[in-house]
Amino acid sequence: MTTTALCHATADDIVVRGRSLPRELIGKLTFTQMIYFHLTGRDATPAQTAVLDACLVALMEHGLTPSAIATRLTYGSSPEAMQGAVAAGLLGVGSVFVGTTEACAELLVRIAAAADARAEARVIATGARRLPGFGHPLHRPADPRTTALLAVARAHHLHGRHCVALEQLSAEVDTAAGRPIPVNVTGAVAALVLDCDLPAAILRGIALISRAAGLVGHVREEQTSPAMRALWEGAEAAVTTTATDRKDSP
Amino acid sequence: MTTTALCHATADDIVVRGRSLPRELIGKLTFTQMIYFHLTGRDATPAQTAVLDACLVALMEHGLTPSAIATRLTYGSSPEAMQGAVAAGLLGVGSVFVGTTEACAELLVRIAAAADARAEARVIATGARRLPGFGHPLHRPADPRTTALLAVARAHHLHGRHCVALEQLSAEVDTAAGRPIPVNVTGAVAALVLDCDLPAAILRGIALISRAAGLVGHVREEQTSPAMRALWEGAEAAVTTTATDRKDSP
Amino acid sequence: MTTTALCHATADDIVVRGRSLPRELIGKLTFTQMIYFHLTGRDATPAQTAVLDACLVALMEHGLTPSAIATRLTYGSSPEAMQGAVAAGLLGVGSVFVGTTEACAELLVRIAAAADARAEARVIATGARRLPGFGHPLHRPADPRTTALLAVARAHHLHGRHCVALEQLSAEVDTAAGRPIPVNVTGAVAALVLDCDLPAAILRGIALISRAAGLVGHVREEQTSPAMRALWEGAEAAVTTTATDRKDSP
Amino acid sequence: MTTTALCHATADDIVVRGRSLPRELIGKLTFTQMIYFHLTGRDATPAQTAVLDACLVALMEHGLTPSAIATRLTYGSSPEAMQGAVAAGLLGVGSVFVGTTEACAELLVRIAAAADARAEARVIATGARRLPGFGHPLHRPADPRTTALLAVARAHHLHGRHCVALEQLSAEVDTAAGRPIPVNVTGAVAALVLDCDLPAAILRGIALISRAAGLVGHVREEQTSPAMRALWEGAEAAVTTTATDRKDSP
Repeated sequence: MTTTALCHATADDIVVRGRSLPRELIGKLTFTQMIYFHLTGRDATPAQTAVLDACLVALMEHGLTPSAIATRLTYGSSPEAMQGAVAAGLLGVGSVFVGTTEACAELLVRIAAAADARAEARVIATGARRLPGFGHPLHRPADPRTTALLAVARAHHLHGRHCVALEQLSAEVDTAAGRPIPVNVTGAVAALVLDCDLPAAILRGIALISRAAGLVGHVREEQTSPAMRALWEGAEAAVTTTATDRKDSP
Repeated sequence: MTTTALCHATADDIVVRGRSLPRELIGKLTFTQMIYFHLTGRDATPAQTAVLDACLVALMEHGLTPSAIATRLTYGSSPEAMQGAVAAGLLGVGSVFVGTTEACAELLVRIAAAADARAEARVIATGARRLPGFGHPLHRPADPRTTALLAVARAHHLHGRHCVALEQLSAEVDTAAGRPIPVNVTGAVAALVLDCDLPAAILRGIALISRAAGLVGHVREEQTSPAMRALWEGAEAAVTTTATDRKDSP
Repeated sequence: MTTTALCHATADDIVVRGRSLPRELIGKLTFTQMIYFHLTGRDATPAQTAVLDACLVALMEHGLTPSAIATRLTYGSSPEAMQGAVAAGLLGVGSVFVGTTEACAELLVRIAAAADARAEARVIATGARRLPGFGHPLHRPADPRTTALLAVARAHHLHGRHCVALEQLSAEVDTAAGRPIPVNVTGAVAALVLDCDLPAAILRGIALISRAAGLVGHVREEQTSPAMRALWEGAEAAVTTTATDRKDSP
Repeated sequence: MTTTALCHATADDIVVRGRSLPRELIGKLTFTQMIYFHLTGRDATPAQTAVLDACLVALMEHGLTPSAIATRLTYGSSPEAMQGAVAAGLLGVGSVFVGTTEACAELLVRIAAAADARAEARVIATGARRLPGFGHPLHRPADPRTTALLAVARAHHLHGRHCVALEQLSAEVDTAAGRPIPVNVTGAVAALVLDCDLPAAILRGIALISRAAGLVGHVREEQTSPAMRALWEGAEAAVTTTATDRKDSP
């Protein structure tokens, strides 16, 4: 029998994972606590709530990313369908910019589970040219969001074995490179979300929730101070169109 | 000159609407406070935060809606691209199920601005057969989420002129119908969001943020207890396929 | 009883609108003929096929439109999910750039049905400041695609009452403006699709099919000669980010 | 310098890969010929056109697939944004249902390039439990679309080395299984598209174009004979909602 435990509705109640939405959740949980509860069926501790809040805040906004530009171009093309604009932006949350969180989480789980964590970290750091969760084109030598996130984890005594694994890996990465390589925000989020006892498999989902909120902010700025035409013209002008052809071989 | 005030990044800082993300936002604001700040450039008061939290919690989950089914079918077809599954579900947040929030907000703004609010409510209630924000196929005679949301607004002294307008309109709707017609959750959210001093034009965005979180929960349940095949087969079996044709006239 | 006539499958056959896909459609119909048959249950005449082909070819490519840029940015962010890139681009096929086709079709239907078509066209042309299907920022005084499309319709004797209505409206628009206003490609497609006996309600769908093909071409160019970084940087550079804030009033 | 050769527009011309859209393409090429030209910069031969037409026709429709259901649910939720409904359906064109085309193409390329093709096919067939492009839950012992597609290829003398590789692999798969395993439609499309000299990397794009057309047909049927409510209710009824909870361990 196929079942869902997420939601059961009757005429006068809506039960989400065993609790009454109107009586036990609305007005009782913050949005972040509700996200944690909805994902796991467990109540977030105050520390887990604080750390998850920090992650959701950290990933929400990073300026005119490809994702934000796609949202703004789509909103300007179809302002009657805001959902399409937000969806277009979310479709850019893939392997290149955010998927690294998941790949980094796998490494942290491996290190945290190893008999000799430091040795495992060294093997990983030595083998690869570029590691997920490490490096940033702009934020060097450190990603300021990482520093802030790890401080939040520490302040709430949630700096657990995955945060430790991240620091061990970071030390080995620096040694292997011969210079400090920043742990970027996706690496930090991977460690914190795992130390919140959230499943690694849902990491991209955390990013999607946070970015959805960020993209709605970009839609709002388009409503009050539209940049769509400028973005379009700027993009178009950056690429030369050639009237002659270039054959494509299969 | 086209500008964006949302975000400005340097090597060691990210400034969102004039504030340092790592120093003033991460660990300082909850996700909900950040959403309010990002949308408006203003700090949410504790009451506004509580009311916005309640709205985001209320809209997040309502079982196997068309939106949730679309997410689950898409996730089962393309599990390597969770972003596509969440985007597919968000694309159902349109005029039929959530757009009513916006239309209801317009009515509330009209009533709140009228010289004689009660008379304006009466005109609106009398003219229409079905009003946005009113009625629900299951939750009758009252939508329990509405009751809970208005109680939160009242507890936080944020039961302002749009909540009052909603109650005035509700009274006139009941009179016109000759029986109690429920104010549904989208009507309540419209009133509360407006009384939080958030712009009416971003109402659908609030729903999109909340539903994005709900849809990630459905993805998580697909990961641990997949229902996609059952949903597909149940849907398919509900429609009879006919081998003969039916011509379509233009 | 809810039915679908589109498709009925058994172990050894797939029946689409009453015809065997393997025996009567694959190898027998072109893609364009199949689109017409699938939409209407009728066989396209050779003239209808030629005109629909011309429309699908005409709408497929217009360079680095917002839609094509959204596809390229998304593909570069998530190359493992080509479907997300194409979907992101299609989400820009909305009211601003293509929805005008539908609005123009409504006008043509009105004119074609009027007792005095010329008078009806004059009323429409006089009343409005800007008409759907008319005007183009670049292609002036004529959109060369319109000229080509109307020539195809004429060559195939499919220049029917909606093409006539378009020419009547065009003449009145020019008179009202005191100068030639181009009929753009979406206006021409509206007339031709209607004269093919396709329903007005599916006009946006014709554009979506054509643009899907065009966007796949942009994905292909990204694979062989990526422009995503240049598009991103060009867009970003066109907008000034300000570190100070601008408050948003509700 | 970043360039695009796809399209260059002036006031009176639009040049696509070196050819004038209004003068050399509209009315001169069918939609399928235009797709081939746009993707490769080369003219399709009549045989390549016929085979590509057959592939596009074959993939267009297969009834109430998860993809078609997602489109219909989304259209019913947001009929004002048809583009969202088609996009939602396309997002299901991923690894599970269509991605197998690409994986099968890789095998065919390997076999076609091997010194001893038969031996290579045997190694592949023996090693795997389930091969991409092989097997179908309904169409057994043969997928009738495959039979039709290979017949089209043969009739047009385009039954080249990838079709041969497919037949070699199929023979070895049957031997390894001890019974006939159907080559499904995605396997056949892989072979035919490769024998058309189209690049393997764009195979999913061919499916996306074809499915976009199919999904527009489902939107059209929703307009004239809506099944959305029945699909929703059928799906919902197939899953039991439980009021008690099931904890999720990370």
